[in-house]
Amino acid sequence: MQKPPFVRGLLHWTRRMRFEVTTLGTGAALAARGRYPSAHLVNVRERLYLVDCGEGTQERLRQAGINFGAITRILISHMHGDHYLGLMGLISSMHLQGRTTPLYLHGPAELREVIELQLRVSRTYLRFSLHFGTHEHRTGAPVFTDNRVEVTALALDHRLESTGYLFRELPRPRNLRMDMLARIPLYARQTVKAGEDLRLPDGSTIPNAELTLDPPPTRAYAYCSDTAYLPRLAEALRAVDLLYHEATFTTAMAARAKETKHSTARQAGQLAKEAGAKQLLLGHFSSRYKSSDELIAEAREVFPNTLAAEEGRTFQV
Amino acid sequence: MQKPPFVRGLLHWTRRMRFEVTTLGTGAALAARGRYPSAHLVNVRERLYLVDCGEGTQERLRQAGINFGAITRILISHMHGDHYLGLMGLISSMHLQGRTTPLYLHGPAELREVIELQLRVSRTYLRFSLHFGTHEHRTGAPVFTDNRVEVTALALDHRLESTGYLFRELPRPRNLRMDMLARIPLYARQTVKAGEDLRLPDGSTIPNAELTLDPPPTRAYAYCSDTAYLPRLAEALRAVDLLYHEATFTTAMAARAKETKHSTARQAGQLAKEAGAKQLLLGHFSSRYKSSDELIAEAREVFPNTLAAEEGRTFQV
Repeated sequence: MQKPPFVRGLLHWTRRMRFEVTTLGTGAALAARGRYPSAHLVNVRERLYLVDCGEGTQERLRQAGINFGAITRILISHMHGDHYLGLMGLISSMHLQGRTTPLYLHGPAELREVIELQLRVSRTYLRFSLHFGTHEHRTGAPVFTDNRVEVTALALDHRLESTGYLFRELPRPRNLRMDMLARIPLYARQTVKAGEDLRLPDGSTIPNAELTLDPPPTRAYAYCSDTAYLPRLAEALRAVDLLYHEATFTTAMAARAKETKHSTARQAGQLAKEAGAKQLLLGHFSSRYKSSDELIAEAREVFPNTLAAEEGRTFQV
Repeated sequence: MQKPPFVRGLLHWTRRMRFEVTTLGTGAALAARGRYPSAHLVNVRERLYLVDCGEGTQERLRQAGINFGAITRILISHMHGDHYLGLMGLISSMHLQGRTTPLYLHGPAELREVIELQLRVSRTYLRFSLHFGTHEHRTGAPVFTDNRVEVTALALDHRLESTGYLFRELPRPRNLRMDMLARIPLYARQTVKAGEDLRLPDGSTIPNAELTLDPPPTRAYAYCSDTAYLPRLAEALRAVDLLYHEATFTTAMAARAKETKHSTARQAGQLAKEAGAKQLLLGHFSSRYKSSDELIAEAREVFPNTLAAEEGRTFQV
């Protein structure tokens, strides 16, 4: 049954505006207690990106009702198994489902080695092209830009070289003022939306400021996992809308966090506070914690607007 | 609460006799419809072996309540992802759980390459030793023998070199006759059980046949996946107690089965019949089949004693 025009309009608007993150796995290296290894599905105005891809991610995607054929890029933070072991299976399923659109992988150089070896030994000749991109391990280094977002690297501090990702939405077109709509010829609407003044056939000009309103502010999402507490990230994360940060341990395990180069929940809260983030999302919980309550409570003491990632739950950026 | 002696005795006897297979995954390459990729847990008198290890096998093992730290050997039939992609994660979890007992892997030479590369790039230094065994791709070639079973290879016919496995239980000790028990000194019981005659201190001899009864017959389980229909296997599979055979398609898809070197359910039934197997277990169902009913019905037309593998279900050999 077709939805009424109002609902369709609203759905269209929602999709046009969407910037959200579905957390598919919230566990650390040893999966347990119903938690799965790391994977975040990022949807920016109906373009899908996957950040990390632990074992079983393809199943999580299916459970969340996400058409993984629509994923355009996959970013892998580092080469610990709980962040990439689901990638080969996902690529294989994309192939078996008949994918033909290119897939872009961004991650450590070793990722290419692992995937190419596995394609070779299984004699799999993909129907789609697989592009491998690497980037500098430096905060601010460009990872990719498309017509939705600009993604830059965050140089994290872990036992292996580990990269966080900052997704910054590109500015959307300016909004035409409804009360001026009748004065803007159809042919000129795109250029006016792009910020240009309107030149009329009689030679007169209407300044753009009289015709348009500012577009909604751009939004940003950052993914920081795995990493030790790294206060110097605050600058790069300034005013990020949603900060996902690992919180493997509580402060009681601070020594273990330091030794294994992970963060405590309090440290994640501290970084969110220093960066002036709008919201903090925690995950990568050690299997020693039955629930995330203790971790969330600890982070909230420092940064009240803290949420816990949950398998299959979606968060707005 | 401790169980009463009778129950304990029964449990002990059950464990001492156990030869069973838990099917953890019944799907083909493209997992769907709640099916998972291939993995069979074989328990022979409390020694655990894993045959194939598709993505997510460690989770299936947890769900089935199986302590995967107790697995001593893992056999990988071939290098298609749905048969081995869960192995690296399982090894990693064994490591994180503190395993120190050696683990034996048997499979294609490329398996070693894939695992060693992944250990290297994740800088994982296992606390336990990992032994890689290869074997000839020839029916009857020895894979390993321990004090429970002798496992030999079955040269299957697939797009990649693919090996089936025949688990043949080693003969158990002879049973002492209860009515003769008083006449057998304690020190001589092991040798009598092993089949020797009893020499008494007075120089007389009691033939073993008067003191013992035959042990229960040895049992055999065969795993054949992935493979095209291969009638010549019948000889090697003669009178096997439980034959697991892939049945990716129904006869309606026989051309596709031939092209992809898989079997139809009817062909699996045919092989079970030719081999004189006692029971046939089908799996590796294509995602096109909503239920396995159609496949089972087809095989039963040829070989009535056919069962469908199910996720987490255990079958007695």
